[in-house]
Amino acid sequence: MPKNRQILLDNRPDGEATTSNFKLVASETPALQDGQVLVRHHYLSLDPYMRGRMSDSKSYSAPQPLGEVMIGGTVGEVVESRHPKFAVGDKVAGMGGWQEYSAVDASQPGLLRKVDTTHVPLSFYLGAVGMPGVTAWYGLNEIIAPKSGETVVVSAATGAVGSSYAALAKARGCRVVGIAGGPEKCKYAVEELHFDECIDYRTHPDVKTLSKALKQACPDGIDGYFENVGGYILDAVLLRTNAFARIAVCGMIAGYDGQPLPLQNPSLILINRLKIEGFIVSEHMNVWPQALQELGTLVAQGKLKPRETVAQGLDAAPEAFLGLLKGKNFGKQLVKLI
Amino acid sequence: MPKNRQILLDNRPDGEATTSNFKLVASETPALQDGQVLVRHHYLSLDPYMRGRMSDSKSYSAPQPLGEVMIGGTVGEVVESRHPKFAVGDKVAGMGGWQEYSAVDASQPGLLRKVDTTHVPLSFYLGAVGMPGVTAWYGLNEIIAPKSGETVVVSAATGAVGSSYAALAKARGCRVVGIAGGPEKCKYAVEELHFDECIDYRTHPDVKTLSKALKQACPDGIDGYFENVGGYILDAVLLRTNAFARIAVCGMIAGYDGQPLPLQNPSLILINRLKIEGFIVSEHMNVWPQALQELGTLVAQGKLKPRETVAQGLDAAPEAFLGLLKGKNFGKQLVKLI
Repeated sequence: MPKNRQILLDNRPDGEATTSNFKLVASETPALQDGQVLVRHHYLSLDPYMRGRMSDSKSYSAPQPLGEVMIGGTVGEVVESRHPKFAVGDKVAGMGGWQEYSAVDASQPGLLRKVDTTHVPLSFYLGAVGMPGVTAWYGLNEIIAPKSGETVVVSAATGAVGSSYAALAKARGCRVVGIAGGPEKCKYAVEELHFDECIDYRTHPDVKTLSKALKQACPDGIDGYFENVGGYILDAVLLRTNAFARIAVCGMIAGYDGQPLPLQNPSLILINRLKIEGFIVSEHMNVWPQALQELGTLVAQGKLKPRETVAQGLDAAPEAFLGLLKGKNFGKQLVKLI
Repeated sequence: MPKNRQILLDNRPDGEATTSNFKLVASETPALQDGQVLVRHHYLSLDPYMRGRMSDSKSYSAPQPLGEVMIGGTVGEVVESRHPKFAVGDKVAGMGGWQEYSAVDASQPGLLRKVDTTHVPLSFYLGAVGMPGVTAWYGLNEIIAPKSGETVVVSAATGAVGSSYAALAKARGCRVVGIAGGPEKCKYAVEELHFDECIDYRTHPDVKTLSKALKQACPDGIDGYFENVGGYILDAVLLRTNAFARIAVCGMIAGYDGQPLPLQNPSLILINRLKIEGFIVSEHMNVWPQALQELGTLVAQGKLKPRETVAQGLDAAPEAFLGLLKGKNFGKQLVKLI
């Protein structure tokens, strides 16, 4: 039996999350029951939603229990199987958590799915052709629902969601403007991710200057916005919305670590007749097949070239996760486990 | 020719609106052109949206021009007609403005409509069976879209919109909770307007206490909210929303007079997967016939008994309007002009 190293949530953050909230332990991989398969994880996905699970305040899902393996998406390879539909060597995606191996009850629908790595690299199933990609797809199609020629904006533009959003929006004939932190990310957004423009929020650190930059980048106003960040970026975007603009709210990472960040001028909701809608992609499983198919095709066609930041080894996961919360990653944040 | 007295917008408010923003003038009623009718106004409607028009900041409609008659809904009687479809004595509703008479081009669709006062008092066509009633209808049906058994809330509960909202929501099998200012209004809301409960915000002057009162009045949480007010009332309601609650934003009267009032915790939009949508009823003329028919039926059946506050004479309009902005009215605010 191989050893399985795991990272548990040891205690909850008081304000900002720190590495001391986590604890690394080692155990035996379990003996399989009938219907189970043993997956060796190649990559662990790190995502902002995990910060929400670390707290026990009211949220859309139960908090991560203390003393258990941190939740997380994983891709890997079947190394042992007691389920007829999975064979040793199959590549699979699932929610294996922050650990090197997981034993999965493969008969439960949705827990484990086989993935095809002919045209799509395995790690992409945690990003552009996984949960983040479907998140972009849902917000863009089901909430923003842009017409060709409309201008749509996204924050955290070079992240896993933002990259997919740009490719999907371009495919729908939109002008796509990104917001990201730093000149390197903005350059990448325009040159590799097909954004029409990308605004560096670090050089526009308040509502007034950012809103001015948005006015220049969006001369016809903003028709749709995908919110990953919250805080003053949302305030600045709202000032540039057109009548009947749609805002898909998927993340409020700016407020995760402490006091909630107010929305400065909610009367714009009325003045511009905005629709603002929050969503969680796991509650809309019905769109996943269609979304994953379109995203996989965009990757195969070279129209979606997401970037990855890869931390090496399970030990590196807590530090990489804290960096993600601060925007230190560049593209999809992964941990490589083999 | 009768004299026509008019109230003009003389200058724009600097902060709070005052009576000195208005100016009373007298003129001759104009000689009619072919296709015009002369209407003697019986009632002028006063509505919060007028405050928005007094300012020249960006809004959904052009500001009221200085030196012109203030915009406003009116009901009255045709006293002279040069249009074949209108006869002297017809009761009509239109947008005659703050004046005693108006000459209306009756051939323009939508400017003037005949109303039936057999079962519905003339003044109600400015309230429950007019623009405010349709406003309640649109927000409830098209945005909140409640299921039977859900809990829906409205602020400014005894106003023209709130009264109609309660009758419509009860007809859809909802639990309806109102928010109003003062024990007299709350008593009226429950006893006459069929609210299940009504909360006096004056005894709950902050987010914490109001949110506690909402928890008691809405033991199953809040599924829909119709926003007429903004400010801390919206913050308190958001804290009690259920997953997938819908918020129709029709008014932000609390912020009309000065600095915008922030929304304290926008991350609730994500946490509770809320949909928040602003709207203006005049942009949805397609629903008016259906809405007016239902509202007229509810009045005729005695299920909708809106209350009115009536100021006497055109001179009283500015003072009555400022009172409306402060919630001094009790029910629909009208000015009787005859």
